Amino acid sequence: MKTQEEIRDDFPILKNITYLDSASTSITPKPVIDAIDDYYYNYNANSGRGAYRIAIKASNKLEDTRSKIANLINADKNEIIFTKNTTEAINMIANGFKFEKNDNIIISNVEHHSNFVPWLNLEKNSPKNIKIKIANANSEGIVENSTIEELLDENTKLVAISHVTNSIGACQDIKRISKTAHRNNSYFLLDCAQSIGHVKIDNKKINADFIASPGHKGLLGPMGTGFLYGKKEILEHVEPTNLGGGTITNLVNKEFTLEEVPYRFEGGTQNIDGIIGLGAGIDYINQIGLSNIYTHSKYLTQELYKGLSEIKNVILYGNPKNIFSIISFNIKGANPYDVAKILDETANICVRSGFHCAIPSLKHMKAKEGTIRVSFHYYNNLEDIIGLLKSVEEIANFYK
Amino acid sequence: MKTQEEIRDDFPILKNITYLDSASTSITPKPVIDAIDDYYYNYNANSGRGAYRIAIKASNKLEDTRSKIANLINADKNEIIFTKNTTEAINMIANGFKFEKNDNIIISNVEHHSNFVPWLNLEKNSPKNIKIKIANANSEGIVENSTIEELLDENTKLVAISHVTNSIGACQDIKRISKTAHRNNSYFLLDCAQSIGHVKIDNKKINADFIASPGHKGLLGPMGTGFLYGKKEILEHVEPTNLGGGTITNLVNKEFTLEEVPYRFEGGTQNIDGIIGLGAGIDYINQIGLSNIYTHSKYLTQELYKGLSEIKNVILYGNPKNIFSIISFNIKGANPYDVAKILDETANICVRSGFHCAIPSLKHMKAKEGTIRVSFHYYNNLEDIIGLLKSVEEIANFYK
Repeated sequence: MKTQEEIRDDFPILKNITYLDSASTSITPKPVIDAIDDYYYNYNANSGRGAYRIAIKASNKLEDTRSKIANLINADKNEIIFTKNTTEAINMIANGFKFEKNDNIIISNVEHHSNFVPWLNLEKNSPKNIKIKIANANSEGIVENSTIEELLDENTKLVAISHVTNSIGACQDIKRISKTAHRNNSYFLLDCAQSIGHVKIDNKKINADFIASPGHKGLLGPMGTGFLYGKKEILEHVEPTNLGGGTITNLVNKEFTLEEVPYRFEGGTQNIDGIIGLGAGIDYINQIGLSNIYTHSKYLTQELYKGLSEIKNVILYGNPKNIFSIISFNIKGANPYDVAKILDETANICVRSGFHCAIPSLKHMKAKEGTIRVSFHYYNNLEDIIGLLKSVEEIANFYK
Repeated sequence: MKTQEEIRDDFPILKNITYLDSASTSITPKPVIDAIDDYYYNYNANSGRGAYRIAIKASNKLEDTRSKIANLINADKNEIIFTKNTTEAINMIANGFKFEKNDNIIISNVEHHSNFVPWLNLEKNSPKNIKIKIANANSEGIVENSTIEELLDENTKLVAISHVTNSIGACQDIKRISKTAHRNNSYFLLDCAQSIGHVKIDNKKINADFIASPGHKGLLGPMGTGFLYGKKEILEHVEPTNLGGGTITNLVNKEFTLEEVPYRFEGGTQNIDGIIGLGAGIDYINQIGLSNIYTHSKYLTQELYKGLSEIKNVILYGNPKNIFSIISFNIKGANPYDVAKILDETANICVRSGFHCAIPSLKHMKAKEGTIRVSFHYYNNLEDIIGLLKSVEEIANFYK
């Protein structure tokens, strides 16, 4: 097995930059890029019902990725729907789930816009009087189970919560929230955009009814990939909202027969090279081992939090006990965008700045202009943290 | 400029196979694969509001592709929405356009399922009593303007027709149908899945209100790419159905403000390498020149049609005067799937078989078990046709 330092060689871009924006998208290891190239050079065909060998190979490789995802989260392969990103996965449920009159849905105020706006839009446009209830997180960005309990009622159809808050890295107790939702006969949707590929997501233990996930973040897959997991018996009652090629088995006059789940949700030509690359990304993650990734990220998170807390003028968000792999901070008097720009231009350090598509979350954390956000994956090392801390200290001194 | 034979070197897969399934997906030239690799090796970052240079570069390259698409079809860049495929583009309108009570929509019976099922689903599920009217093509697969005229009435909101019928290659007179629709104050949606990249689509002349297009077919872009064009003033009134990151500018309490068109339709992380590759594909097409591509494909179509018509036992579909770049045929007594399989296994020839996601179209053409479909692009040559004809003749002799 490769050591953590050897693994950095698989990410050639790290020779030029310090990449600390994995919460936005991870960088992509060479074996994943090689899998994309292999597809285009050797079996560049559409999947589906092609009779010829390269088309059959492309279809089989697509289904291999489906199985790899299923194994990763401890689910059945027929419960995995390929999507273009996490956002599409959540919208599939918001637009396709058969909500009933007066149903309500609980989300939190620290969600990414993608687990926020689709639900608000449903409340606004559905003729069924659907209501969205917003659970306010505590001052550390944690959605307490008791807050969910207070909001649940007999009309609560769904609780939709993210595992790790993308704005400040707060880890939610999703097993407990899932149990609480189910005790109320509500469904539970997990947004694992910031946790998958970083920690083990075992859905036999979490018992989420839906999981919305990216392929291009923790799983190190290509851009344009993601998936929706749904329990088979529930997916049977979700309306597909992207109908067309591959989603039906017959069409006579005006009557069409839907394909089986999950295929009825996968209309049109799939992002085949992306999905095959995602399979290679999952293999790569499995070779490192999720527990190694978790331990390494936890260590870097703690070192960075400690280092930042020792710099005068730095404001940190969240409780170091409950944050993971993402750290949000500010320098007093400095606009986060300016800080990110200086880090890039003076030290080739890539971090995100602003509201990270989570305006309510950062307003809740009293970060009125957003934050500077640092996020890791296994390819980061202690030198990355030391280099960042040195630069932040210099900038903080400047703004003192 | 490279000759047609030199261009074949840019498609290394052609060393091993005769690829005649471009209507399903084109194969991908080396400059497109190189563009994907360049992204992953040199500026592997998310687009959007990143302050750092590689993120800015990724965003700029994404917008470059938007401009290239706009130039290609003679439109404004703000009228181009990136999608994962043609199917998604059509569903965006079926699900997001604000149809009014008792509106009707005209499609034809030779459409691909992706320009068929989304509309039937709308009829089935909309509470607004939307009706779908189906224009029957003539015996050659042509949708006659007079048939559209007969179906139009004061409630017809939209006419949605494909340029080249994917099942048999029939070319529709879209300029005339567009004019007819507009004369009735109806909108016109063009499905150009089989024509873009093969012939010039100049929307100043066609005057379509919406165009649904793939990136991975005629334009030689990567998988997982496509776009929806819509006239700016009409897109302002289409509801986005994939809300989330990147689609809003503000969110306060439960009120959100949508981003400008087209960004409000592009929720979540985009298929960045795919979109950048699509830009390289369009450059490649422009270098060859659309008129050269058209002339070459027309020549191959005629040669193949002529050759097939001389083989006893072969049934051909459509009129050679009106078909382009796609030829569907059958061998009497042979299942199309078996023929495709034999062509692959005995001669490494890749063709599609079956119903090509267009069951009503092939039933209309009386091809009860579907067809064998041959489809070209500029990388095909006369040897491909001669080799195919030789194999078809052998198979036809066997079934005599």
